[in-house]
Amino acid sequence: MASLACEGHFSDRNIPFGIACSKTHPERQAVTRLGDSVLFLSDLAAHGLFSKIKGLPDGVFSHDFLNAFAALGRSISRAVREVIQEIFRNGGLGAFPQGAVEELDAVTMHLPVYISDFTDFSCSVEHVKNAGRIIIDDERPPPAFFNFPIAYQGRASSVVVSGTPIQRPMGQYRDKTTSGAPVVFGQSRAVDYELEFAAVVGKPLAMRQRLKATEADDHIFGFVVLNDWSARDIQAFEMTPLGPANGKNLGTTISPWIVTLDALEPFRLPSPPRTLSVPPHLDDGGNGAYAVRMQAEVVVGHNATVTGVSQVQWLYWTIRQMAAHIASAGASLRTGDLLATGTVSGPGKGTHGCLLEATEGGTSPVRLENGSTRGYLEDGDAVRMTAVAGDGKSSVGWGECVGQLLPAQPFNQ
Amino acid sequence: MASLACEGHFSDRNIPFGIACSKTHPERQAVTRLGDSVLFLSDLAAHGLFSKIKGLPDGVFSHDFLNAFAALGRSISRAVREVIQEIFRNGGLGAFPQGAVEELDAVTMHLPVYISDFTDFSCSVEHVKNAGRIIIDDERPPPAFFNFPIAYQGRASSVVVSGTPIQRPMGQYRDKTTSGAPVVFGQSRAVDYELEFAAVVGKPLAMRQRLKATEADDHIFGFVVLNDWSARDIQAFEMTPLGPANGKNLGTTISPWIVTLDALEPFRLPSPPRTLSVPPHLDDGGNGAYAVRMQAEVVVGHNATVTGVSQVQWLYWTIRQMAAHIASAGASLRTGDLLATGTVSGPGKGTHGCLLEATEGGTSPVRLENGSTRGYLEDGDAVRMTAVAGDGKSSVGWGECVGQLLPAQPFNQ
Repeated sequence: MASLACEGHFSDRNIPFGIACSKTHPERQAVTRLGDSVLFLSDLAAHGLFSKIKGLPDGVFSHDFLNAFAALGRSISRAVREVIQEIFRNGGLGAFPQGAVEELDAVTMHLPVYISDFTDFSCSVEHVKNAGRIIIDDERPPPAFFNFPIAYQGRASSVVVSGTPIQRPMGQYRDKTTSGAPVVFGQSRAVDYELEFAAVVGKPLAMRQRLKATEADDHIFGFVVLNDWSARDIQAFEMTPLGPANGKNLGTTISPWIVTLDALEPFRLPSPPRTLSVPPHLDDGGNGAYAVRMQAEVVVGHNATVTGVSQVQWLYWTIRQMAAHIASAGASLRTGDLLATGTVSGPGKGTHGCLLEATEGGTSPVRLENGSTRGYLEDGDAVRMTAVAGDGKSSVGWGECVGQLLPAQPFNQ
Repeated sequence: MASLACEGHFSDRNIPFGIACSKTHPERQAVTRLGDSVLFLSDLAAHGLFSKIKGLPDGVFSHDFLNAFAALGRSISRAVREVIQEIFRNGGLGAFPQGAVEELDAVTMHLPVYISDFTDFSCSVEHVKNAGRIIIDDERPPPAFFNFPIAYQGRASSVVVSGTPIQRPMGQYRDKTTSGAPVVFGQSRAVDYELEFAAVVGKPLAMRQRLKATEADDHIFGFVVLNDWSARDIQAFEMTPLGPANGKNLGTTISPWIVTLDALEPFRLPSPPRTLSVPPHLDDGGNGAYAVRMQAEVVVGHNATVTGVSQVQWLYWTIRQMAAHIASAGASLRTGDLLATGTVSGPGKGTHGCLLEATEGGTSPVRLENGSTRGYLEDGDAVRMTAVAGDGKSSVGWGECVGQLLPAQPFNQ
């Protein structure tokens, strides 16, 4: 599979966090990345590099997940990031203890956080209009769309790290190729991706504590790219009235790198204009958006085709508002919780975050670089996503979020 | 608050599992219950009572949650249960090490398992017919109701143990008392309970492994009583098309005691007749139901009113089918996952598992023993649920699952 041009994603302006292991680091530990080098943070801590940071417990980088570190809050992750930036800016990669740095190719990335609750919102006006028009011939957004960021709970155990294969699911759906559209049980014929942006909760919020959108940043550790794989036929049949379940449970892929709020600070934008006024707790201070460009590609063998390019700033609701809304009825936020935006789509051709939209429900297939066409995904197709804030030398990015679709497995094996 | 008649619930036929602490046992540990006595299992293990059980790791009862024990599978929990039964049958409570037994009143019960995914199904035909008729004047069950047990993911972090207060939530909903039903932000005016039965996953199932309903029992550790508190006005406005979220996030109460499959074995019943045939993985072997009677009461001060009595065997789908369905699209089952049945309602007056049904959406209030009436719950009301299999001396029960509704908290405090 051809590599994305992710140059500039991992300069010293980024300093993202992840979890990795390698031959010389057989136990999972916290890592960061500079260019194509991975720095093992437990090693750096053992060399005393973070000894001046108050409130950083011993061994916090030695867990299988980043949760204990993320729970410490933004001031701690900021301090760690700044120490790494300072060392690098003064002496380059050579200034770090030798054994603590490995090439990316030698490293295996793992799921960065233990995820307890995964909430998937629906923040894109264009996505809900397109999906409504295509599926039920009604492009009016859902009744509450402009009142608050509507959401459903996803299955936390289905979230996997980039690189994990996804299997075409079996399920029940209406076979629209047969007269009367009978319900059949079989492999999904409409496996799709959804290009999403997601926040990872850092400092937890207790039940019933609630949260103003203007204070939400204190509880966000950082952001990931997320592919909310969807079996459209299974989803369509199951979701009235309780929402999607098995149509989404085949897998949800996230990028291995969590980019911090601090790294994105230079890319902050005004929140989008509001159609309706919101209750005070959903007032996000007016600067809740980020200039982040996202891209989805369908990859067949070595042949990649860009199928959608979109912008996080086009979303109607901001991450701050998502967090404040879910906490407003008394829910807690636990460290590692994922708050995803839903499909990031924009206005016009080429800005759609899923094939449902890009192909008008499979009826207007997209042409791939290799000459074939796709309504929905075929077995063996990979989907590669990325996101980047800024351009060229000033950019901060996520690298790749990738997964390959495996054939369905007959049920009795 | 008056105590329920739970006599017979905790005889030596039961031996449920929970997590508790006390003054003399300040660290949480696994416990069981015999009558009104609580037995601390880590103490019993330290006295060597379980030394003949192969595959029972040291310290497995000393965690804050039962997950490590539950993950060992049914043969281990069965062996532990049988050892306790044998000692008790031979020598009564006096046969256990003295410090390991405490009176129930001296003990604080905690959430028994760490819950990663909470899936709430909709298994009652009567409930969906009643709810449809009351809410949208259409009593036809959801499109997929007879094809598989439809479900949504609940918020795992909102699940609390019996006794935890629940706060009336704030939220946005249509104010139907005002002309034009404008959307307002305020405290919910329609807080309800839902009487549910739920399975707790024991031995985990890996992603993509799938499961036949006939093999599901191997992955069930036991059952709890569950109150799926619901703010009907918030829920009604938010749930198209993604399903319920904030309308359910105020809290979900479970009983502290997990009753094992083995304890329920004598109460097994034939699965209900099917309207439609099901795919092979949903064939539950024909004996997937349990004779469990459930009851909900609204308690005001010392005054309790039974508002619903229903039967788990009336549900259209069985626990085995719920587990097989959720795994069928590739999802994993993690130890501690909750699989809840949805509201357990039956045919006819007095068998409704929620006030929405019992009061026709609040329009036909129920009369309480103290002479007052309720459309939905008032601040200070408690809801007490219980469940019991069998009658009198042969019964096995859950004790109480209780929660009191606190007033809404103004948002800026």
